[in-house]
Amino acid sequence: MVFKTPTTSLSRHTPTAVFYREKNLVEDMLKSGSQSDFVSVMMEHILGRQIKPEEQRVMNAVLITMMEHGFTPSAIATRSVYMSAPENLQGAVAAGLLAIGSQFVGTVENNARLLASLASLEGEERRTYAKEIVNEYRGRKAHIPGFGHHLHYPDDPRAKRLIEIGQENGFSGKYIESLHLLSEVIDEITGRHITINATGATAALLGEMGIPVDLMRGFSVIGRTAGLVAHIAEEQQRPSGRYIWDLVDKSIPYED
Amino acid sequence: MVFKTPTTSLSRHTPTAVFYREKNLVEDMLKSGSQSDFVSVMMEHILGRQIKPEEQRVMNAVLITMMEHGFTPSAIATRSVYMSAPENLQGAVAAGLLAIGSQFVGTVENNARLLASLASLEGEERRTYAKEIVNEYRGRKAHIPGFGHHLHYPDDPRAKRLIEIGQENGFSGKYIESLHLLSEVIDEITGRHITINATGATAALLGEMGIPVDLMRGFSVIGRTAGLVAHIAEEQQRPSGRYIWDLVDKSIPYED
Amino acid sequence: MVFKTPTTSLSRHTPTAVFYREKNLVEDMLKSGSQSDFVSVMMEHILGRQIKPEEQRVMNAVLITMMEHGFTPSAIATRSVYMSAPENLQGAVAAGLLAIGSQFVGTVENNARLLASLASLEGEERRTYAKEIVNEYRGRKAHIPGFGHHLHYPDDPRAKRLIEIGQENGFSGKYIESLHLLSEVIDEITGRHITINATGATAALLGEMGIPVDLMRGFSVIGRTAGLVAHIAEEQQRPSGRYIWDLVDKSIPYED
Amino acid sequence: MVFKTPTTSLSRHTPTAVFYREKNLVEDMLKSGSQSDFVSVMMEHILGRQIKPEEQRVMNAVLITMMEHGFTPSAIATRSVYMSAPENLQGAVAAGLLAIGSQFVGTVENNARLLASLASLEGEERRTYAKEIVNEYRGRKAHIPGFGHHLHYPDDPRAKRLIEIGQENGFSGKYIESLHLLSEVIDEITGRHITINATGATAALLGEMGIPVDLMRGFSVIGRTAGLVAHIAEEQQRPSGRYIWDLVDKSIPYED
Repeated sequence: MVFKTPTTSLSRHTPTAVFYREKNLVEDMLKSGSQSDFVSVMMEHILGRQIKPEEQRVMNAVLITMMEHGFTPSAIATRSVYMSAPENLQGAVAAGLLAIGSQFVGTVENNARLLASLASLEGEERRTYAKEIVNEYRGRKAHIPGFGHHLHYPDDPRAKRLIEIGQENGFSGKYIESLHLLSEVIDEITGRHITINATGATAALLGEMGIPVDLMRGFSVIGRTAGLVAHIAEEQQRPSGRYIWDLVDKSIPYED
Repeated sequence: MVFKTPTTSLSRHTPTAVFYREKNLVEDMLKSGSQSDFVSVMMEHILGRQIKPEEQRVMNAVLITMMEHGFTPSAIATRSVYMSAPENLQGAVAAGLLAIGSQFVGTVENNARLLASLASLEGEERRTYAKEIVNEYRGRKAHIPGFGHHLHYPDDPRAKRLIEIGQENGFSGKYIESLHLLSEVIDEITGRHITINATGATAALLGEMGIPVDLMRGFSVIGRTAGLVAHIAEEQQRPSGRYIWDLVDKSIPYED
Repeated sequence: MVFKTPTTSLSRHTPTAVFYREKNLVEDMLKSGSQSDFVSVMMEHILGRQIKPEEQRVMNAVLITMMEHGFTPSAIATRSVYMSAPENLQGAVAAGLLAIGSQFVGTVENNARLLASLASLEGEERRTYAKEIVNEYRGRKAHIPGFGHHLHYPDDPRAKRLIEIGQENGFSGKYIESLHLLSEVIDEITGRHITINATGATAALLGEMGIPVDLMRGFSVIGRTAGLVAHIAEEQQRPSGRYIWDLVDKSIPYED
Repeated sequence: MVFKTPTTSLSRHTPTAVFYREKNLVEDMLKSGSQSDFVSVMMEHILGRQIKPEEQRVMNAVLITMMEHGFTPSAIATRSVYMSAPENLQGAVAAGLLAIGSQFVGTVENNARLLASLASLEGEERRTYAKEIVNEYRGRKAHIPGFGHHLHYPDDPRAKRLIEIGQENGFSGKYIESLHLLSEVIDEITGRHITINATGATAALLGEMGIPVDLMRGFSVIGRTAGLVAHIAEEQQRPSGRYIWDLVDKSIPYED
């Protein structure tokens, strides 16, 4: 089989220059007098288009929110690996990132897929489909991605604020509408209030910005990477890895 | 053995709030009217102290510079893994990060250690020690970390600009001086010009900001994570993984 | 929320002993005169039951087969990471393992799921369902997991031999029957011969042994780990990572 | 720069065959009547030479010993990641492997380096150098790799038995002698008995077999991979990841 040669538009280099897409890193992006902003540069580099200030503001809020939530499975993996291999900081970060999967932070994509389907419909059709979704998940006793949080109630404070920030910056279209509709239908059918969570709000905001669903998890990864580096910084000062090992080993009894 | 219970000052949560260190995420950090900046928040969270605007500017330049350099071993690993397991974006990023080791991006630490030793000395003592370092590396035919680049000559354009950005923001103390001195001594002893590279300049700037040497690699990791997400975004549109597989498999001959 | 304390039956230790399940590692498993066999011990440890010699023989063949296939995406990731971080052998192996996903080696599970559904049916019902499966995959132009190989034709030699080894050891029940049936139906419907591949044969054999579908990928991981260590051993003697970097970087052109 | 094309002797393939080094996988290694043994095949593949039955026996004991030790940092990382991303078994294994670093299992190399230096000397010179090593480590309050265990005392039962197995199979040369000498000197200088641990014994045995020091960690990785798959198998039946999260989060207090 012969494979067609792919091309790249991300980067090229000469002995005296590096280009990010069509821009010269040193002469355009880092030039004197310009205020280089990592978040905008990163968005333009990933998405391959110009970024509006409103998008940059929402992305900052999303990245900050995804950064940290204490001793999560991610942080526990990072600290356990760092204790064992401190010469290898990147391995500890990598271990923690591997926990961004289908069950927690990574649910952003699953929620976005639901929102995308809903956003493509209008009026009663949209509401009817929302009911179908909720009933289908309830039928198989599954969590609806983007809803509920085992630590935050009645509402995930982050979700509410992220949605407001979206609104303040002009992002309150079909994805946000669909998220609110889904929330309403969930409460109606279950007979109790289940919060929109931070990944649900993130999914809607990234959807409003036109970010492809399959790429959304990438932004959770970027935000969380910074948080895991903070856990390593703290581990360097106040080691917890050994204590966690001992604690877990002693707390889970052997049973034949 | 009994292990003392460690503590954390990174984060705590209540049902209705999340705190990053002493700040309420929603009410302080993301509050209406405030302009939340991921890079400052991340720096304050990792370093546990207030960040000056000058530090934030230098860090933006560093993160942007560390982000991308085309089809590096990192990017090749990320794309190869993404092709094989596209359901698992975080795994592809993790694979690429694992390549930030002692040989390339991770050299930031090794260079910083040299600079820290030099910075602790003055005048002739400093110069004498710089000569010892250079002769010691030459003796075992090793690269001096932070110097030389197999793609950029006579100078790594990124290094020069990063140092200028440092200067524009008031960072030109003992680490920068030591870097320049080491550069001078290298050229003198080897009889040719060997460029300061981007990780060398980064090491000096992070040293000027008082960032612990063992933590420096963390910032390379954060910057590069964004770049690897861009490679995944491009891989989704223009797959290269299969082509790379075929290319490598056919190019490396079998030999008994 | 209160989480019930889990228990473990894998291992416990005292100051003078380590137990694997109910056996004393030193006094039972490694005792003088006994011939300790890693593959049997591993199978008993993972599956929590006694292993028959026939199962051990089939597993040896499976592990050997999964071990190696040259410069695959796995091996390319491992070598790229090893070049960059040779101080961190485990990171290079981890990077390669991350490539065992939905597209190649990891397809063992997807195939096993099809076989499990078919195995639960009899006679005409089974055949009818096989046709449905094939038509469904063809409808969305998807590969049927466990079938076809881009390098091996008309048949994957490994698949044929693995199935024979199963038969020689008494494993030729409903999973193997279902695999053959599916193969027949594929050829019938597509009008050409598409080979059963090594992961297809593996799925059927592991299914015959009663190994849970969600665990199957674990054995591919174990076999491939050994292969990746071999790639690292060769990389230590005959480095290829730098060549691969250069080759890929030069072969994929920049295009705006 | 032009890089010389490397070659490989690990594997090649044709449409109808796969070769591992010079052997045809199907016709030679898995042929009818032959008893294929994963451990021998793996050793020959990694080391590129024929393996004696004695070496195969010792390797089986080493792999079995490296496989498991309960809720270690490795197992905790694997279980935390598996809970978060169960669709991605290989990611959970990879996270656990990343913990095989300089502090625990990976110490095999550091010990082997000491033994290699000692093995190159004779008589009084060897003893003098052993004393220097011990004093040097004591001087900087560092653990001597291969010695001591925080759970096993007065002796690590695995170490003693591994050394016996070596002896039963004819491996009791200079590496083993050097290990015993170092042990004697440690007890003498510290005035108390510090056990040889399992990685110390492993280092000596692998050294006796002529396995390169930089490759030794690879065998720990292979053995441990099997153990981590067992932890995933148990996690599928008796989930502990959520409990560990809750336990750790509640046990480490916030402190400003």
